[in-house]
Amino acid sequence: MIWNFTKMHGAGNDFVVLDGVRSPIEMTPQRARALAHRQFGIGCDQILLVENPSHPEADFRYRIFNSDGSEVEHCGNGSRCFVRFVHEQKLSSRNPLKAEIATGLITLNELPSGDVTVDMGQTRFDPTSLGFDVAGLTSKTDGIDTLYELPLTTQDGSVTKAVWLSLVQISNPHAVQVVVDVDTTPVRQIGPLIESHPRFAKRVNAGFMQVIDRQTIYLRVYERGAGETLACGTGACAAVAAGVRRGILDSPVKVRTHGGWLTIEFDGAQLRMTGPATTVYSGQIDIDKLVASIPASTTQEKP
Amino acid sequence: MIWNFTKMHGAGNDFVVLDGVRSPIEMTPQRARALAHRQFGIGCDQILLVENPSHPEADFRYRIFNSDGSEVEHCGNGSRCFVRFVHEQKLSSRNPLKAEIATGLITLNELPSGDVTVDMGQTRFDPTSLGFDVAGLTSKTDGIDTLYELPLTTQDGSVTKAVWLSLVQISNPHAVQVVVDVDTTPVRQIGPLIESHPRFAKRVNAGFMQVIDRQTIYLRVYERGAGETLACGTGACAAVAAGVRRGILDSPVKVRTHGGWLTIEFDGAQLRMTGPATTVYSGQIDIDKLVASIPASTTQEKP
Repeated sequence: MIWNFTKMHGAGNDFVVLDGVRSPIEMTPQRARALAHRQFGIGCDQILLVENPSHPEADFRYRIFNSDGSEVEHCGNGSRCFVRFVHEQKLSSRNPLKAEIATGLITLNELPSGDVTVDMGQTRFDPTSLGFDVAGLTSKTDGIDTLYELPLTTQDGSVTKAVWLSLVQISNPHAVQVVVDVDTTPVRQIGPLIESHPRFAKRVNAGFMQVIDRQTIYLRVYERGAGETLACGTGACAAVAAGVRRGILDSPVKVRTHGGWLTIEFDGAQLRMTGPATTVYSGQIDIDKLVASIPASTTQEKP
Repeated sequence: MIWNFTKMHGAGNDFVVLDGVRSPIEMTPQRARALAHRQFGIGCDQILLVENPSHPEADFRYRIFNSDGSEVEHCGNGSRCFVRFVHEQKLSSRNPLKAEIATGLITLNELPSGDVTVDMGQTRFDPTSLGFDVAGLTSKTDGIDTLYELPLTTQDGSVTKAVWLSLVQISNPHAVQVVVDVDTTPVRQIGPLIESHPRFAKRVNAGFMQVIDRQTIYLRVYERGAGETLACGTGACAAVAAGVRRGILDSPVKVRTHGGWLTIEFDGAQLRMTGPATTVYSGQIDIDKLVASIPASTTQEKP
C-alpha cells in the first residue's frame, strides 16, 4: 500500500505528516517505528497523523507517535505543522482551527507570515507537580519564583557543582537555570545529571537560558529521554515563565533555539507560543514493503 | 527548482540518490549539506549523484557527497545503490555496469536476488600505508598477518588496556581486533581511543569482529570521523582480509552488521563485496526553497 506523506519541521523538531482524512490510515507501533527510522525509513522525531474528529466542535483531530511507536498527548511544534499541513493540503481553509487532541480541544491560528500561534495551556510551579523532592535542599526567592539549589554528582560519586533551578510543569516537567553563555555551557554533560537526578521522580527536561535582554533569550534544552534537541517548545515556555516570574523577563519573549526562533507570551498562568512550520518535501512510500525491509533486531538501533 | 529524488540504503548506510542523467544537476557543498540534514532537509549519510560519464568505456559516472558537503572517492554501499537505481529508473538495463568514479572504472553486477556485487580493489597491509607508527610496539605473527599491541590511554592519562590490531588499508585505513562477544564490547568507549590514537597519522577506522564460524563474522566498526555506523563496507572487507590472513576465516565470509548482511570474497589481494541495496521511497523537493529555509548557524548542528 502506497502512502503519500509530507515531511515538515517546526523549528527543527521534525515530523512525517500523514493525511488520514481523505483515506483512513491504520497506524501501528511497528509502522511508526519503521517510518521514523532515519536510515531504514523516512526518519523523523515524530509521526503526525491528521484525522476526522470525534468531538462535534473540532475541525480535525491529530495524533502524534514517537519514534519508539508510543503515542504522545501534545506537542507544540507538531501542532503548528498540523495547521500548516491542513491549509497547504486544502483539507480546510478555516483559520483559526480547532483541533481535538488526547487531552481536549486546542485552538490554533496561522498568521499572515505563515507562523502559527498555539495555546500551550496552564502552568504549575509547585515542586510536587513535577514529582520533585525538596527535602533538605536550600531554596531562595527571586521575584515571585522559588529557586532550589541542586548539588550535581558525577558517576564516580564526587559532587562537581550545584545549580539553582526554577521548576515549571507544563504538560511535562522542566528545571530551568540561567547561564552566562549558553554556547559554551556543557549542556550535554550537565543536562543528563539533572535529567536523571534521583530527586525528580519522573525525570525532568533541563533548560539552560542565556538572557540577551528583557524580551530575548537564547535557550538550549536537554530533553527527557531524548538528549539535546534543536528546539523544545514546552522548554521555551518553561524558560519564559520562569524568567517572567523571577522578574528578569517581560512577555512576550523571543526565544532563540538551534532550530529557529519561537515567541512566547505568558500572563502569569496561561502560555501561548508562536513559531514557524516548514514544509520540506513530499514523498510516496510503500508501507508494507518498508516494514518488511527492516532488520528486526535493529529497528531501534541508534547508530 | 523541483528535484525528484530516491531515498535508498545499503545495509543501513543511507543515500539521497539524484538523477543527473535525464537533466543535469548542479551540486554545491551548500546544497549537499541542506539535503543531508536530518531535521531541516531529507536526511542521509551521503548524497549520490548519477551522471553521464566522461570516460568512453563507462556506462555512467557517480559522485558521492558527504553530509558536510565534501566529495568522497568511493563507497561500497553507495555503489550498490547506484546499480539498483540505474536499473529501477530504467536509465539502463545493462548488467554488469561499468561506473566511472574519481579513482577510475569499477564494474558492478546486480544478481537475480537484487543484491549487488562490487569490486572493492586492492588491499595493503604494511603499517606505513596506514600512516601507523610502529616504533617500540610489541608485534606478533598470526598466519601471514602481523598484529601490533596498542596500549590504550584514557583522557586522564591512565593506561586502561592493550589491544592486538591487524592493519588493513583499503581505500581508507582500518585497525581490526577480534573480540569474544561484540554485542557487549564497549565499542563506543574503546573505538574513539583507537580512531584518534596519535600513532595513526590519518586516524583510523576501528573494527571489532566476533568470529561465529570460519565463514561467518559479526562486526561493529567505529568509523573515522563518524562514530559507530550501521554498516561499514570497507570495514567488512578489512575484517575479512585480516581474518583470512590470520588463518581463522575462509573466503567467502558472511558478515553480520547492525544494518544487514554483507558477503566478502578475498583472494589474498583483491576484495569483492556483495550486499543489498534497498529503495525506501521517492520524493520531490524544492532545492532553492530548502537552502533558503535552513538556519545559517545550525546547518551542521548535530543534535
